[in-house]
Amino acid sequence: MSDARSGLQLRSLIKKSGELEISLLSVPTAEPGPDEVVVRVEATPINPSDIGLLTGAADLSTVKASGSKEAPVITAKVPEAGMKAMAGRLDESMPVGNEGAGVVVKTGSSEAAKALMGRTVSMIGGAMYAQYRCLRVNECMPLPAGTTAAEGASWFVNPLTALGMTETMRREGHKALVHTAAASNLGQMLNKICLKDGIGLVNIVRSKEQADLLRKIGAKHVVDSSAPGFMDDLTNALAETGATIAFDAIGGGKLAGQILAAMEGAINKTAKAYSRYGSNVHKQVYIYGSLDTRPVEISRTFGMAWGVGGWLLFPFLMKVGPVEGQKLRERVISELKTTFASHYTRVVSLQEALDPANLAVYGKRATGEKFLINPNKGG
Amino acid sequence: MSDARSGLQLRSLIKKSGELEISLLSVPTAEPGPDEVVVRVEATPINPSDIGLLTGAADLSTVKASGSKEAPVITAKVPEAGMKAMAGRLDESMPVGNEGAGVVVKTGSSEAAKALMGRTVSMIGGAMYAQYRCLRVNECMPLPAGTTAAEGASWFVNPLTALGMTETMRREGHKALVHTAAASNLGQMLNKICLKDGIGLVNIVRSKEQADLLRKIGAKHVVDSSAPGFMDDLTNALAETGATIAFDAIGGGKLAGQILAAMEGAINKTAKAYSRYGSNVHKQVYIYGSLDTRPVEISRTFGMAWGVGGWLLFPFLMKVGPVEGQKLRERVISELKTTFASHYTRVVSLQEALDPANLAVYGKRATGEKFLINPNKGG
Repeated sequence: MSDARSGLQLRSLIKKSGELEISLLSVPTAEPGPDEVVVRVEATPINPSDIGLLTGAADLSTVKASGSKEAPVITAKVPEAGMKAMAGRLDESMPVGNEGAGVVVKTGSSEAAKALMGRTVSMIGGAMYAQYRCLRVNECMPLPAGTTAAEGASWFVNPLTALGMTETMRREGHKALVHTAAASNLGQMLNKICLKDGIGLVNIVRSKEQADLLRKIGAKHVVDSSAPGFMDDLTNALAETGATIAFDAIGGGKLAGQILAAMEGAINKTAKAYSRYGSNVHKQVYIYGSLDTRPVEISRTFGMAWGVGGWLLFPFLMKVGPVEGQKLRERVISELKTTFASHYTRVVSLQEALDPANLAVYGKRATGEKFLINPNKGG
Repeated sequence: MSDARSGLQLRSLIKKSGELEISLLSVPTAEPGPDEVVVRVEATPINPSDIGLLTGAADLSTVKASGSKEAPVITAKVPEAGMKAMAGRLDESMPVGNEGAGVVVKTGSSEAAKALMGRTVSMIGGAMYAQYRCLRVNECMPLPAGTTAAEGASWFVNPLTALGMTETMRREGHKALVHTAAASNLGQMLNKICLKDGIGLVNIVRSKEQADLLRKIGAKHVVDSSAPGFMDDLTNALAETGATIAFDAIGGGKLAGQILAAMEGAINKTAKAYSRYGSNVHKQVYIYGSLDTRPVEISRTFGMAWGVGGWLLFPFLMKVGPVEGQKLRERVISELKTTFASHYTRVVSLQEALDPANLAVYGKRATGEKFLINPNKGG
């Protein structure tokens, strides 16, 4: 194991020439300021949101491996069409990894910092795909005794996104919600939250296997968009729950519009008077992911009281403010082994994360496949 | 002229058999309650929003005329595909006409009602395509001396919609706005409001003629979506004005997404740091019309801080409440001959409104074509 003074850090670089390069750099560990700590990172997940930064617009079918076993390098081509969206990051070597957990090995001089010495903490703030990470005390949450770094690694992105959905539902005046790609890690978490909090949730999945998986963990309303009776099933589930807001991970194609149409159909089952503008109940779809990158296609057959828009965790946290945000963080930490437990397909080292065979698996962002990096594994 | 006890009223009926029937019925005039008045309607415009109720989903290429000269009847076929959206109004004979103006010929017993006797008033509340209309005092606004019914007929739908746009812009934290199909009566009004109030407005039109028309009335930013440099011109106009909210009358096709993309392009002209989620400036398109009934097609190339949704005048007025609503009404009445002046292509009687040759013209909802009905014209 390397000493804490320096360590490997994963970097993603897109060159003006149109080449992606992912590599491991040995970087000196920053000296902690008074209110900072240095954490030996032991667990950091590969989330879909990390893959966006990691591989950018590169074509993963062009991946090539080079470098050594200790310092592997991955390169791939970025198609011309994808380069425009990369303009802001060209020729800048970027660290990756939103969240993680590890052990505090060095602290600054403040009481709050010193209190964390030796503690296992969860972290947020980027650059987690590294052996050491220097960060502010308020970017850490100490984990309860008996909770491992692996158990605390995915404490922020998925748990707070799922809580952000039910919280947004409440704040915008809806009483139940819809979730798509609902068999994902995030979707399973959202089911556990809704079961615990008594919130109606309509799960939309894309296969019978995913529907079965969700029913097995207790999901009450599961509809399969690949089944022939999809629109009827969805309308019935919406009428039963009264859901008028949806969070959609898929984005492209007709699904967002279908959800709005089914919501209107569910509302009209109990409508009393004709309105040529449709119901006046506001129906909302928030797109928070882009599993399907095609255009969103919305056939407006559901009146005028509707909205479709983007939704992201960090703007949501900005909107609710630090006090509410801290409450949500504390709930996650206290339910890490139950509601917010994550499941991983594999635990890999930094070097193994750069193995093209692994990249080919996690790069698909497929439901049910989730990798955890232990940057100090066998290091 | 008929006496005030009964009069003709236009009715639109869609039968379960799939036939539209527009006819004139002789109906008794309701006796005014204490706080009501009877108005002899002298001017009522045919707005796009009226045409929706008037012809429903009927195929106007199948229009047939029957009945007599005094009591003409129009019939047309409603295609099978359009019948579902008509479910709520089947076999119900519906009066038409959102707004109008005329002279108070009878009043209820309250002081407020009696004060209106003989006055020319503007009206809102539906069923205006009629010779007489009994309505509540608070659905009328007395017109200043020297203002005719024709000048006061279009006082509500277009003027309050245009004011609703600038008011929504302010309330949602934007500083300038975009308008599409901007050479319309409504668009010209919006230009006059924005010039008077010092608000940045980007006008999107679909032809050089429309661009010229708007420039002639003083519009500062006009971009032509049929011109080759459209996206660049739009981005430049957005950068100059800082507009991050749009009101779109067109709806279908790619325009809403193009506006969001151009907004993001304008914002990024001054962006300092790379964010893989795009700018965090919220970009909004409200669709308030449906000149293009195809699906909305949104290619998401503008980050996550965006929204597209429906916008309607009446929910807006509900949201701002009666005090603010009254202020907006008073502004319209005081600027009826300037900012809120409407222009009509033709003035027709109720019978002439049912002439297939006229229906063929106003039924197109074309920019620059606007009909006014005088239900007591030569009656």
